[in-house]
Amino acid sequence: MIIVPESAIGELVSLEDCVDAVEKVFVSMAERSAHNFPVVREAIGYADALFGFKSGFDREGLALGLKAGGFWPNNADKGLTNHQSTVFLFDPETGRCRAVVGGNLLTALRTAAASAVSIKHLARNDAKVLGMVGAGHQSSFQLRAAVQQRQFEKVVAWNYHPDMLPKLAAVAEELGIPFEAVNLDRLGAEADVIITITSSFQPILKASQIKPGTHLACMGTDTKGKQEVDVALVAAATLFTDEIAQAISIGECQHAIAQGMIAPIDIAEIGAVINGQKPGRTSPDEITLFDGTGVGLQDLAVAQAAVGLALARGTAVEFDF
Amino acid sequence: MIIVPESAIGELVSLEDCVDAVEKVFVSMAERSAHNFPVVREAIGYADALFGFKSGFDREGLALGLKAGGFWPNNADKGLTNHQSTVFLFDPETGRCRAVVGGNLLTALRTAAASAVSIKHLARNDAKVLGMVGAGHQSSFQLRAAVQQRQFEKVVAWNYHPDMLPKLAAVAEELGIPFEAVNLDRLGAEADVIITITSSFQPILKASQIKPGTHLACMGTDTKGKQEVDVALVAAATLFTDEIAQAISIGECQHAIAQGMIAPIDIAEIGAVINGQKPGRTSPDEITLFDGTGVGLQDLAVAQAAVGLALARGTAVEFDF
Repeated sequence: MIIVPESAIGELVSLEDCVDAVEKVFVSMAERSAHNFPVVREAIGYADALFGFKSGFDREGLALGLKAGGFWPNNADKGLTNHQSTVFLFDPETGRCRAVVGGNLLTALRTAAASAVSIKHLARNDAKVLGMVGAGHQSSFQLRAAVQQRQFEKVVAWNYHPDMLPKLAAVAEELGIPFEAVNLDRLGAEADVIITITSSFQPILKASQIKPGTHLACMGTDTKGKQEVDVALVAAATLFTDEIAQAISIGECQHAIAQGMIAPIDIAEIGAVINGQKPGRTSPDEITLFDGTGVGLQDLAVAQAAVGLALARGTAVEFDF
Repeated sequence: MIIVPESAIGELVSLEDCVDAVEKVFVSMAERSAHNFPVVREAIGYADALFGFKSGFDREGLALGLKAGGFWPNNADKGLTNHQSTVFLFDPETGRCRAVVGGNLLTALRTAAASAVSIKHLARNDAKVLGMVGAGHQSSFQLRAAVQQRQFEKVVAWNYHPDMLPKLAAVAEELGIPFEAVNLDRLGAEADVIITITSSFQPILKASQIKPGTHLACMGTDTKGKQEVDVALVAAATLFTDEIAQAISIGECQHAIAQGMIAPIDIAEIGAVINGQKPGRTSPDEITLFDGTGVGLQDLAVAQAAVGLALARGTAVEFDF
């Protein structure tokens, strides 16, 4: 059994590694070589915690396993991350536990990688301005991954609590990109690519605020009831997602589906765009929207990459289990 | 993170430890301090394997986690056990992975402990003859656990393939108890306690074969379609189980339920008998039947016991994760 502790992930796995791993597994999903198993998510009635599993199997990448963990809202008081997760990989040949991998940083990286993959395949090549809606912990990962995909010359950002914005501004500065805090009207008017990464239960961005040709990556909605953009915007956009079943039930598309404004057939899997089975952006004026719901296979893919890198570099800790 | 490898379990955990742990968690379940989460079970489409998770949380024992693994039918060719499982325990205060524990032997022990707990609380005190239906790998664990509960003077056994019986006979000999291979009529006529531990999809034992006062522990039926005893026997017995939801859907009770011969209200949780909330056996002539379906909380309970013993003996391997 190989152990890759949380503390080793930062030096081991790059955003590029994660983009590569997530891109591959999205293709496996679209080609039905990989599928996610049912998600388990439970309020355990202790420490106000939510606990559960996301799991699956990728026959191409031979990644079998699960991410287990959840949300412990009182962890911050103890100096720990509220979101805790661990990835367990199994040998698909034998069913034996192959690896235990710290999943906290990997979760942030795979989520950032997903929006980056969507920008890579769906944003206009001449995109210059990146709009960030949300400035919490995860937003800096999304920003770092996004700027690898296009030659962005400016970041415009909005957050419900404006006092969070300087932290994101510091990341932009580190990346050498001018940063401006703006209102939502200006954000929509200026941005060529917009990433939403909030925990909102109300639409923040409206269709009327978005200019033609924009690509949106909606990454915050992963639960029934959450919403980041209005249904008119979803209905007006060409829609892509990681997994259609999740998009229509817990993703950004859930509300437009519930109101009958779109149907599941209107949503394409991004993996099918990556492998050329389906068109991506077909015109410079089209609004594209990627509904990133987050699937267990992404977690397995990046954990598998971490194990592979640890083995290749000789830093893997092997334990006779 | 504490690691208890498969190879350490045998010396670490006794059947008595497991009976104690399983008894406690059955009580927690009956008192609604513990609950099992939905089971995930998937044919992965690779190596003919079934893979999945059983999970739960026991607020009394503070056991949170899952057993992951499944059935790899080609493992035997590789010198490995076909059933492979690993238990992962989490700290309910923080959500961090607390322990990784080899789950193969523990699964055998907790299944044996469950029928032993049922014998302890439901069999007549003067039970002298133990009937074994099934003589596969698991049967010897059930036998070893059963003989700790009553002063059995004889074992009568039946197996679909009689050539498997000598192996079980050797265990009985080791335990110092006379053993006889018999037909089902004699088994039912002689046995005071019967354990069924087969993978049958047809009823093996019939109501007409069983004498008054018998206690049955039906341990083999854990899937839709499996069946070890006829519905008339289930309908005639006073019914007990580990978890009613499983008993009526995947346990021995499923068929009598489907045919409307019993209702869920006719089945008592064994935990409620152990803690005195409900009566167990109320007369010497009553036939009692324990439908042991196997729940994730049992796995967590025995894994938690293994970790506690490893810590107490100073043999736990701790890993900075």
